[in-house]
Amino acid sequence: MISGRIFSLSNRTGIPKFQLTRKLSSVAATKLETPPEPTEPRMLTAVPGPKSKQLHSDLSKMQSMDSVHFFVDYDASVGNYIVDVDGNTMLDVFTQISSVPIGYNHPALLSAFNSDSAMRALVNRPALGVYPGADWATRLNQVLMSVAPQGLDQVTTMMCGSCSNENAFKLMHFYHMEKERGGRAFNQQEMESCMINQAPGTPDLSVLSFHGGFHGRTAASLACTHSKYIHKIDVPLAQWQVSDFPRYKYPLDQFVAENNAEDERCLAMAEDVIHNSRKTGPTITGVIVEPIQAEGGDHHGSNRWFQGLQDICKKYDIIYLIDEVQTGGGPTGKIWCHEWFELAESPDIVTFSKKMLTGGLYHKSKLRPKQPYRIFNTWVGDPGKLILLDAVLKTIRSENLLEETSKSGTVLLDGLTDLQNRFPGYLNSARGRGTFCAINCDTTDRRDKILNQLREVGVHAGGCGDTAIRLRPALVFKEQHAHLFLNKLETVLKSF
Amino acid sequence: MISGRIFSLSNRTGIPKFQLTRKLSSVAATKLETPPEPTEPRMLTAVPGPKSKQLHSDLSKMQSMDSVHFFVDYDASVGNYIVDVDGNTMLDVFTQISSVPIGYNHPALLSAFNSDSAMRALVNRPALGVYPGADWATRLNQVLMSVAPQGLDQVTTMMCGSCSNENAFKLMHFYHMEKERGGRAFNQQEMESCMINQAPGTPDLSVLSFHGGFHGRTAASLACTHSKYIHKIDVPLAQWQVSDFPRYKYPLDQFVAENNAEDERCLAMAEDVIHNSRKTGPTITGVIVEPIQAEGGDHHGSNRWFQGLQDICKKYDIIYLIDEVQTGGGPTGKIWCHEWFELAESPDIVTFSKKMLTGGLYHKSKLRPKQPYRIFNTWVGDPGKLILLDAVLKTIRSENLLEETSKSGTVLLDGLTDLQNRFPGYLNSARGRGTFCAINCDTTDRRDKILNQLREVGVHAGGCGDTAIRLRPALVFKEQHAHLFLNKLETVLKSF
Repeated sequence: MISGRIFSLSNRTGIPKFQLTRKLSSVAATKLETPPEPTEPRMLTAVPGPKSKQLHSDLSKMQSMDSVHFFVDYDASVGNYIVDVDGNTMLDVFTQISSVPIGYNHPALLSAFNSDSAMRALVNRPALGVYPGADWATRLNQVLMSVAPQGLDQVTTMMCGSCSNENAFKLMHFYHMEKERGGRAFNQQEMESCMINQAPGTPDLSVLSFHGGFHGRTAASLACTHSKYIHKIDVPLAQWQVSDFPRYKYPLDQFVAENNAEDERCLAMAEDVIHNSRKTGPTITGVIVEPIQAEGGDHHGSNRWFQGLQDICKKYDIIYLIDEVQTGGGPTGKIWCHEWFELAESPDIVTFSKKMLTGGLYHKSKLRPKQPYRIFNTWVGDPGKLILLDAVLKTIRSENLLEETSKSGTVLLDGLTDLQNRFPGYLNSARGRGTFCAINCDTTDRRDKILNQLREVGVHAGGCGDTAIRLRPALVFKEQHAHLFLNKLETVLKSF
Repeated sequence: MISGRIFSLSNRTGIPKFQLTRKLSSVAATKLETPPEPTEPRMLTAVPGPKSKQLHSDLSKMQSMDSVHFFVDYDASVGNYIVDVDGNTMLDVFTQISSVPIGYNHPALLSAFNSDSAMRALVNRPALGVYPGADWATRLNQVLMSVAPQGLDQVTTMMCGSCSNENAFKLMHFYHMEKERGGRAFNQQEMESCMINQAPGTPDLSVLSFHGGFHGRTAASLACTHSKYIHKIDVPLAQWQVSDFPRYKYPLDQFVAENNAEDERCLAMAEDVIHNSRKTGPTITGVIVEPIQAEGGDHHGSNRWFQGLQDICKKYDIIYLIDEVQTGGGPTGKIWCHEWFELAESPDIVTFSKKMLTGGLYHKSKLRPKQPYRIFNTWVGDPGKLILLDAVLKTIRSENLLEETSKSGTVLLDGLTDLQNRFPGYLNSARGRGTFCAINCDTTDRRDKILNQLREVGVHAGGCGDTAIRLRPALVFKEQHAHLFLNKLETVLKSF
């Protein structure tokens, strides 16, 4: 069978055998040594094991955190392998909810603070909106602007993705209100009414988001989040508009007409909602959308969908925000997933966090607030995170990690496709860009069983949506890791 | 004159002469050297100087950040002295908007990451709600719980103050809704309606805040912020209730009856608003209040006020949240400012950030969410910040910084009081706890002139509210620094 040949260890087709590299990188020697990456998983106990359970019991005295899965030995974890406190060594394709860019204990990260100035930047954290350090502009330029989405020449750092989106929303509203005022200064009534959250200073505006989207957990970003009820229930939130994000039938090449129709339906619906908002309120000032709905079930959108959304935003002169918090930083084989979409021009705002290690937002110059202190908080980011990101981006370049991710992503997606063909009762809708891949199971129960059994054989993966397995390996995930993952998944599927 | 004697360099009363210590601390030698603290300010240019202006021009190409005041040489800044890129050495009594706990380049901070495990904890940032490190429970216990407000045995870390408050609000709402449901599980309608921000899953609840308060800039915390219009204008926000925070007449001992009446008026108003919220909605589930309204003008509240608020919260079984983001970590002479208030029991929640270096919230066990993933985000804090906080708290203990802060605070407040007696046309309402002091000017213009002239003579201070000068030195601010500050302020006042 084709399937077996793609990732089988038996090497029947000349595809290289499962062989893990012994070293993570060629970075020069550092103070802290990085041992070689393990060659394969090694399971000693169930997960969570007894030590994890004991630590969870300790932690539970201080916080209700039943979401904790297991405790990790971060000193021992290396590259793609996470080692838990019970000594279990697992291939990690979930990587701290997709937030580990170049694997555990990468030498480039361990040496990032070796210089005096880096350490002083770390411990003397400034209020960057008022007293930035001497090298701040250079650092922003050399690090964040070096990977700025084309056409976006403005950047502001934040601490997390939620805060980045909240500030992006402010830019949308400012842009809208600036137009409404025709450029005049704030008047007394506006300045006074906003102090008690009343119109006209506090206007009735909103952001359009999509069913299945996830944009964070602070109040405005949570108002735009619609992926799981447990994120939202009991929290008072603005009644902002929600529209449909396409739901495609897979394999895509067999449902071209249906999926095109789905795009057109969702685009028409979005335009309708935006149009109506001007009559009924709240007035939509912008659209927030993920390139892949990465919490809500790894729902992809076509280029037509993302291009069409941009057209609608331009037609209504509202802001097009692409939330790259989970997709950004390389896992799709490009630094930004939206680079795949062949947009006529860049989105107006791109937000990021996770693999970028710092939160933040890129945006167009037209969105620059005219008045100071409008996009502001005490810290406005953290220089220490840019020092780490600098090391990450240099490593991505020196180790060709985007190309490597594309290659291993191809192995992954081919393998997933093959497995769904072989196990059509269990798996369907394999999809992905780069290593940012997912596959659906027939039921939630099946998905959870697969995830559990994968863990038993040494692979730590995650789910999203109701039935999806989502793959979120680090950028150092190579073809051999993909083969290993697929072999393990095959083993699990065969056991059913 | 008494005033002169308190802080004059002429040492007429045996009060020690202005003599700065030459070393910051007795911490053992570290890799990175900390030079001696300067003995006095040294100004070479206007502020911002030419180098700051050039860097601002560079930065302005990438972001609209006209709030930037000057650029800082963080390698050269030491202890209480900030050195800008033009070589100006200023006594810093604003300290990055009150967020520097033990001064610049403290040896304890520079050596905090000297161990392998600390460096690995820094660069392998976990998703703490799912995969905490082996030492996480111990670290939470030894660091954060070592300074937990009495009676609060639960703690969760966050990245900033805004996010800490947002999560505190969730705990308030969860507590209320749990009571409403009488402990039953969520029903289908609740789970479905919350996905589109509709009742009953998204209930009409609110948090009571106070005029003049500041609690952050994400949507829910911004809804509770009422200190400056520029924070709020054009941002759509929930129309939550606002009530009055006392405004006292100073000196307090001359206006006892008036100020008591002000407390009673504000308490009655708060109770009224809470009571009415049950009839009109949104239903108030908790109260958020600062121990000192630290952005809105350094408005203090009496013990009676804070005790009375607690009584009202208990009467209505709603949550009492004290926001210690700016006051926490020692500047008032106690780790938590609310320790001064002689409350019958601890508040239900205390939020923190800034000098604590990590955001977060302490709360009572009764507020533990029963379901996982309700107080959650990707990172849930940052172990690297706890490593720094550990060094800070150890330094506070080893260098007796709370006592030192109390002593230098006494010098400061006595001096400010004396200055307002000598310059009654310019200054009034001197107030403070520890070094967390403020004084009002007769006009906003005067305040701004004083701040500018102080800077010209080498003291970097900040304002808040309309007319207040706020003092926010680090905890290493000693009596001699207080004398120096007062001398400089006297010089400026004499020049008018």
